[in-house]
Amino acid sequence: MPELKEIATLIGGEWRGDGTLEIKGIQALHRAGPQDIAFVARDRGDADISAVRAGALIVAGDSSIAYANRVLVADPHLAFARLLAYFHPRRPFWEGIAASAYVADTAELGDGVSVGPFAFVGARSRIGAGSEIHSGVAVYHDVAIGRNCLVYANVVIRENVEIGDNVIIHPGAVIGADGFGFGRTAEGAAVKVPQVGKVIIGSGCEIGANTCIDRSTIEETVLEENVKLDNLVQVGHNVRIGRDSAISSQTGISGSTRIGSQVIMGGQVGIADHIHIADGVMIAAKSGVTGSIKSKTIVAGIPHQEIGDWRRNMVLARNLAAMRDKLRLLEKKIRELEEK
Amino acid sequence: MPELKEIATLIGGEWRGDGTLEIKGIQALHRAGPQDIAFVARDRGDADISAVRAGALIVAGDSSIAYANRVLVADPHLAFARLLAYFHPRRPFWEGIAASAYVADTAELGDGVSVGPFAFVGARSRIGAGSEIHSGVAVYHDVAIGRNCLVYANVVIRENVEIGDNVIIHPGAVIGADGFGFGRTAEGAAVKVPQVGKVIIGSGCEIGANTCIDRSTIEETVLEENVKLDNLVQVGHNVRIGRDSAISSQTGISGSTRIGSQVIMGGQVGIADHIHIADGVMIAAKSGVTGSIKSKTIVAGIPHQEIGDWRRNMVLARNLAAMRDKLRLLEKKIRELEEK
Amino acid sequence: MPELKEIATLIGGEWRGDGTLEIKGIQALHRAGPQDIAFVARDRGDADISAVRAGALIVAGDSSIAYANRVLVADPHLAFARLLAYFHPRRPFWEGIAASAYVADTAELGDGVSVGPFAFVGARSRIGAGSEIHSGVAVYHDVAIGRNCLVYANVVIRENVEIGDNVIIHPGAVIGADGFGFGRTAEGAAVKVPQVGKVIIGSGCEIGANTCIDRSTIEETVLEENVKLDNLVQVGHNVRIGRDSAISSQTGISGSTRIGSQVIMGGQVGIADHIHIADGVMIAAKSGVTGSIKSKTIVAGIPHQEIGDWRRNMVLARNLAAMRDKLRLLEKKIRELEEK
Repeated sequence: MPELKEIATLIGGEWRGDGTLEIKGIQALHRAGPQDIAFVARDRGDADISAVRAGALIVAGDSSIAYANRVLVADPHLAFARLLAYFHPRRPFWEGIAASAYVADTAELGDGVSVGPFAFVGARSRIGAGSEIHSGVAVYHDVAIGRNCLVYANVVIRENVEIGDNVIIHPGAVIGADGFGFGRTAEGAAVKVPQVGKVIIGSGCEIGANTCIDRSTIEETVLEENVKLDNLVQVGHNVRIGRDSAISSQTGISGSTRIGSQVIMGGQVGIADHIHIADGVMIAAKSGVTGSIKSKTIVAGIPHQEIGDWRRNMVLARNLAAMRDKLRLLEKKIRELEEK
Repeated sequence: MPELKEIATLIGGEWRGDGTLEIKGIQALHRAGPQDIAFVARDRGDADISAVRAGALIVAGDSSIAYANRVLVADPHLAFARLLAYFHPRRPFWEGIAASAYVADTAELGDGVSVGPFAFVGARSRIGAGSEIHSGVAVYHDVAIGRNCLVYANVVIRENVEIGDNVIIHPGAVIGADGFGFGRTAEGAAVKVPQVGKVIIGSGCEIGANTCIDRSTIEETVLEENVKLDNLVQVGHNVRIGRDSAISSQTGISGSTRIGSQVIMGGQVGIADHIHIADGVMIAAKSGVTGSIKSKTIVAGIPHQEIGDWRRNMVLARNLAAMRDKLRLLEKKIRELEEK
Repeated sequence: MPELKEIATLIGGEWRGDGTLEIKGIQALHRAGPQDIAFVARDRGDADISAVRAGALIVAGDSSIAYANRVLVADPHLAFARLLAYFHPRRPFWEGIAASAYVADTAELGDGVSVGPFAFVGARSRIGAGSEIHSGVAVYHDVAIGRNCLVYANVVIRENVEIGDNVIIHPGAVIGADGFGFGRTAEGAAVKVPQVGKVIIGSGCEIGANTCIDRSTIEETVLEENVKLDNLVQVGHNVRIGRDSAISSQTGISGSTRIGSQVIMGGQVGIADHIHIADGVMIAAKSGVTGSIKSKTIVAGIPHQEIGDWRRNMVLARNLAAMRDKLRLLEKKIRELEEK
């Protein structure tokens, strides 16, 4: 078991109190016992910790919390993330290539790749060193997957998809299904437009469970580096999402839209097709974005507005009855004035 | 074929008419033929049944419907459910352990467990007596599944998940994928926070197709007993849902929110993070719940309001043009009055 | 490589310029090189093509675009679809029946059916000639699939589902899971109503990735011919959708609702249960349709309105502050008038 001073070194912080305290694990603040370490978020510098029984706390360097044993760091949340990984190393799903996996003769697997039972790796697909393919995954033909990727059970990756390094794809996600493209005959019958483009996913991306990223009709659907998608998200064909953007669950992005970098979206947002969202934009949950957003702002509502405007209008919209009553009163008064 | 009087015994009701009538099956009201039984819901006591050709009807005990052959019960809908199960016994998907399944040496399977082809059961996972694991399911390591559970094809259950008895998980559902948790570096790069908590699912729960229930960062995501989730629902990390709650399709619940018991949600509802919803609350479809709801009420809208307020405001919001026109008229009249 | 005049024949158009130009491929307008053909949509007749370097263009017959080499057609979008298929013939996923597939003895496979590794085909299920079943698909018992269908990896089709010819089902879709039907005991406990009906899918339909179509309680959930569903769509039990309708991603249709033919829905639409939507209705993204729509109109909003009304009300709703300020001004003026 590491001592507090070793923990401090690991997370690049300074310790106070008993540096030799042995730390058994990391826990939530109000669950931690005398051998656990917990953290207090930077913006909770004034949290009530009178009931905390943790052996030690990770706090921000400028925090006023004077817990007996503590480690001071610049960002307690990131230090917490680091310690979670330290105390809970991930267990590989499988070692080597399962006898019951199907790997095409022309597929190329790098050093240390593992392929679980009932996984399928198609012709000419390449999987980089250290990547894990779990059970039931289908990698179609001519796919490229980088190094140290983690592809959870029952993911489907269609042909010609390109995936960078250190990408995590959660169970059931579908990468590269056909975009939703149809023409209409003069009689109105829907006619499928074949979708022969590809999907390119940058290094460091994370794709949520049962999320869908469609292939482009003829060009590319692109996630730049380190994009984070939650579960059940829909990314339409020919969309491009900039690096470090994070998109919450059940949000949908329509075809050919361009999302900037470090954009943050809440859940159940809908984004129209063929628009541009600037870098750093934040979009509140359930918003419907119907046109381009050209500068770094925070928006909300259907259709979206700058969030301050949206809040003001929302308050008024919830009090329309009062407004109507005032109107009636004024009508009455004017009638009285007119009669005089 | 059972006679009407046997049907009555089965559903705990009283029969009227020809108790020896043989009943071949159960059908929808307007499809039922002379050997079928159908039902009239309790709140449809005044339904027009002049075109009904059913052999017999199940009606509420206090119903005024005087159909020739009928069974009187307290709740026709529950009696209908009981008869559906009687006339349509479920066929087991597979008998025993398929030769092509993978079951780890250290996994423990109870009596009568069936595991279909291409299913994966990881190390130290335990599956209780009578449970069915269908084809393509992935049960990771250290999972506990109770007795008489039904896990449909291509479900994924990640490590350390605990599932009670009599739980039904529909195809493609993902239990225990990582919660969506990220820190940000000073430069704004997203940094993954490992998700090492678990998911606990109580007995009697039902999880819809392609629904996702995320594991907690460090504590537990919990569904208490008999919670019913529809398809494509998202349950974020560290959420707790109280017993007998029912949540319709495409609804999303953000992290660390607590939902009471017997809560009912329509489809496409969004619930903010870190809030509490009281027991018995009903939430209309497409609502956006942005704060805690402290007592048993019905709410609707984005942001949510008590449903009566929402309806009144909605009517006014749809007639803003009339309000504006009135305002203009008043302006004109005042101008005239001022000029006098 | 085909010459321009052969391309013209293939898409039923007339060529202008150099009919012997060899065409290597089809590309997006601004990516096309001197051996590529591209297209200009019918409604972009005035597009700026000064930077276009394509070898040839497909344009509408009445277009004013006088590009050197071009093919005139009635509908450039449909011609483009035709050429995409010509230049990018789909590669079959698998030849024949994989040794690792499970096909029940009593299942019937037509000529040229292919079944990929780890696919499951249950008892008495029939698959028509030329259909492809990809890896990890689960076809339960007593399913009927028509000719030339394409069932992508990890799709699940539950028992008694009927599927026509030329149907495409994208990865992870779930056809025939139980509808979401519950009764409540007097104490409020949820009681499952067994779902023993079926799903019928007409010829030419396309079902998006991770989309869910629930089986009916006792009757049928029906997609008529050539219905197109995008990804992550929810179709509730006992719904009927008319031919040639197209429904975008993350839309949900509640139980027992009837949708007409050639209906078009944007993304994230929600449709209430037990209502009727007339033929040809168009529903804007994120709408909430709470009642029947009886004629061919365009609607938007929650609850839905005719789109012209919705737009007018939206403009006013976003300017409520101005309305409130006017009201205050009028109040002041009336006070002044009254004081005189």
